Amino acid sequence: MNSLEKIRQENPLVVCYTNDVVKNFTANGLLSIGASPAMSEAPEEAEEFYKVAGALLINIGTLTKANEKDILEIGKIANQQGTPIVFDPVAVGASTYRKQFCETFLSEINVSVIKGNASEILTLVDSNTTMKGTDGETDLDVVTIAKKAYEKYQTAIVITGREDVIIQDNQIVKLSNGSPLLAKITGAGCLLGGLVAGFLFRNTHPSLQVLEESVSYYNIAAEIAEKSEKVNGPGTFLSQLLDEMYQLNYDTYKQFVKREEV
Amino acid sequence: MNSLEKIRQENPLVVCYTNDVVKNFTANGLLSIGASPAMSEAPEEAEEFYKVAGALLINIGTLTKANEKDILEIGKIANQQGTPIVFDPVAVGASTYRKQFCETFLSEINVSVIKGNASEILTLVDSNTTMKGTDGETDLDVVTIAKKAYEKYQTAIVITGREDVIIQDNQIVKLSNGSPLLAKITGAGCLLGGLVAGFLFRNTHPSLQVLEESVSYYNIAAEIAEKSEKVNGPGTFLSQLLDEMYQLNYDTYKQFVKREEV
Amino acid sequence: MNSLEKIRQENPLVVCYTNDVVKNFTANGLLSIGASPAMSEAPEEAEEFYKVAGALLINIGTLTKANEKDILEIGKIANQQGTPIVFDPVAVGASTYRKQFCETFLSEINVSVIKGNASEILTLVDSNTTMKGTDGETDLDVVTIAKKAYEKYQTAIVITGREDVIIQDNQIVKLSNGSPLLAKITGAGCLLGGLVAGFLFRNTHPSLQVLEESVSYYNIAAEIAEKSEKVNGPGTFLSQLLDEMYQLNYDTYKQFVKREEV
Repeated sequence: MNSLEKIRQENPLVVCYTNDVVKNFTANGLLSIGASPAMSEAPEEAEEFYKVAGALLINIGTLTKANEKDILEIGKIANQQGTPIVFDPVAVGASTYRKQFCETFLSEINVSVIKGNASEILTLVDSNTTMKGTDGETDLDVVTIAKKAYEKYQTAIVITGREDVIIQDNQIVKLSNGSPLLAKITGAGCLLGGLVAGFLFRNTHPSLQVLEESVSYYNIAAEIAEKSEKVNGPGTFLSQLLDEMYQLNYDTYKQFVKREEV
Repeated sequence: MNSLEKIRQENPLVVCYTNDVVKNFTANGLLSIGASPAMSEAPEEAEEFYKVAGALLINIGTLTKANEKDILEIGKIANQQGTPIVFDPVAVGASTYRKQFCETFLSEINVSVIKGNASEILTLVDSNTTMKGTDGETDLDVVTIAKKAYEKYQTAIVITGREDVIIQDNQIVKLSNGSPLLAKITGAGCLLGGLVAGFLFRNTHPSLQVLEESVSYYNIAAEIAEKSEKVNGPGTFLSQLLDEMYQLNYDTYKQFVKREEV
Repeated sequence: MNSLEKIRQENPLVVCYTNDVVKNFTANGLLSIGASPAMSEAPEEAEEFYKVAGALLINIGTLTKANEKDILEIGKIANQQGTPIVFDPVAVGASTYRKQFCETFLSEINVSVIKGNASEILTLVDSNTTMKGTDGETDLDVVTIAKKAYEKYQTAIVITGREDVIIQDNQIVKLSNGSPLLAKITGAGCLLGGLVAGFLFRNTHPSLQVLEESVSYYNIAAEIAEKSEKVNGPGTFLSQLLDEMYQLNYDTYKQFVKREEV
């Protein structure tokens, strides 16, 4: 059984500690692929939730002093419970504050996947380098960043962009599905972090294939949504994207997927 | 005048202390039926808001230590102001933390309506019982749960599910409108809590009929939305649901409503 | 180059400290016109964000004790960095708590634009006056309120309503585009605050023309969205509004704009 069928059969609980802007969209996206989202943020109930959760997403998009301590605490509880963590270091390059928090977090907590754009992952690798966007970069650069991050953190790395690059078990794949409209809606990358978490099924060491499937399902749904005659901009795209995620099946997936081993 | 016409004429202020995931959707849903939502959460301004509000919704979907104290405080202020409270114990069965908070809340605060799914209401009745979903349950079970909760809390109980069960003034009704797509969008149940609050018009002891109308209007709008040719999944359903709530009139309501006294 | 072309070319960073209900919609609206929203709320990173931001939006829609101090702190940092602030005193007339906070904020922080409906701006001018809605008011009244606020705060004032009134550099303009459906979706006014911020490009003293353009672009997009055959209510309007904001060009703008100097 492929991951998409599995998620629709098992409806895994995915706990999300994510930013204030995208909670609703992330929950709707997870529901549309068959997962059961829970935006529980209280450390007091973390153990009971994580015990049965397929994975935990941690996204620092709206990090503040008030939630720093909680994020570290729930990270530890997830580690104790053996619950895989997907970590999304949103805009880590934008402030020293975020950089320092990510360093602390990644040195204290074991994560199963780090997902970000090339600029974010580069900041994690070398906090002195700055990089504006990824458009000017060659593919080689992104692959190099992925390799460096993989070496440093010894965990799966998912880099999103015009092309997505994933590295796990020393294998690298480039994926090239997607839609430019994803950059015109807020939380497109954040939702992808949630979807990756949805595909983990309590596996703290996911295979490259599972990571690929999570990223490509999303990008293919976006690609199909963009081409729908119902879509004329980001508003109608948002609705259609959820519909396509809900309807996409594995046959269509296989027909559309564009992947290349590096 | 029926409740739906009344809400469109009077535009009652509905104050919502609800979870982070559904604030936007709840506000849009309340606007679509003619109410005036206010997501005020500061106890410092509660008295001024509640004095003029038709009702207060309290939803514990994203309960944390930081908001526990505020929820108890605003509950007390609403009671002092004679403002009816609709209480939604989201996922109360999922953690000891939520169970304990709900016990404290319901022992200190008078609420006019408790709304939840069968699993949540069962947890309130007997916190040692656990129940996963409601699909495997017979209708009798849900009615029994409703009766027990009504007896224990001496207040109106609304249990949502494939069929909805409402008990008030020792009368029980089963409602069977709705759409399976409601389970595919986040906050569908949370919004219903808001709508019930919208129909209270400062009445701390609402009639069974008013409670029925609030639940059925919503479910009928969902039923019509699902059948729209514009809808192909949860994304387009979300938009269409707001449209149908905005347009539904009492004649259509009467034509669609499926109810049965128990 | 007009402002709309400029925003699409420069993609200015707009930092928003806004209320919990509208963060997602505000971010999507800003993306649709070409800006880059960031909902950063941590004072710890404010300096680094504001240094490169086109403007900061501060919206008090969900003011609580917990965020009061942060709002004052980030206001001071924005002033130090020379970053223009758009201030939206949401529902300031609804509670003494909000009135007092707005007084404190506006006495300690320099803002470039105050945006609100007539009732909100009137409360800022004279906190003893109360005013329910703006529908019963003559145009003269709104202009008078605008003048008084301009005199008191010595900064640009944008009053939204059926007609919008803007005052800057002692010039006043009335704008009359828009759609009644804007009142049926939550955060329509809040998003406008974000858009005004989007058009500031680090200018702490924006021209009347730039303020007009920000307000009119939004209202014209809403006007076109409402007339779309895809729109039958607030749900489909929400999607279509984002699409029209994404697609609106300056030629269409000039064709639709209704303005009158006072």
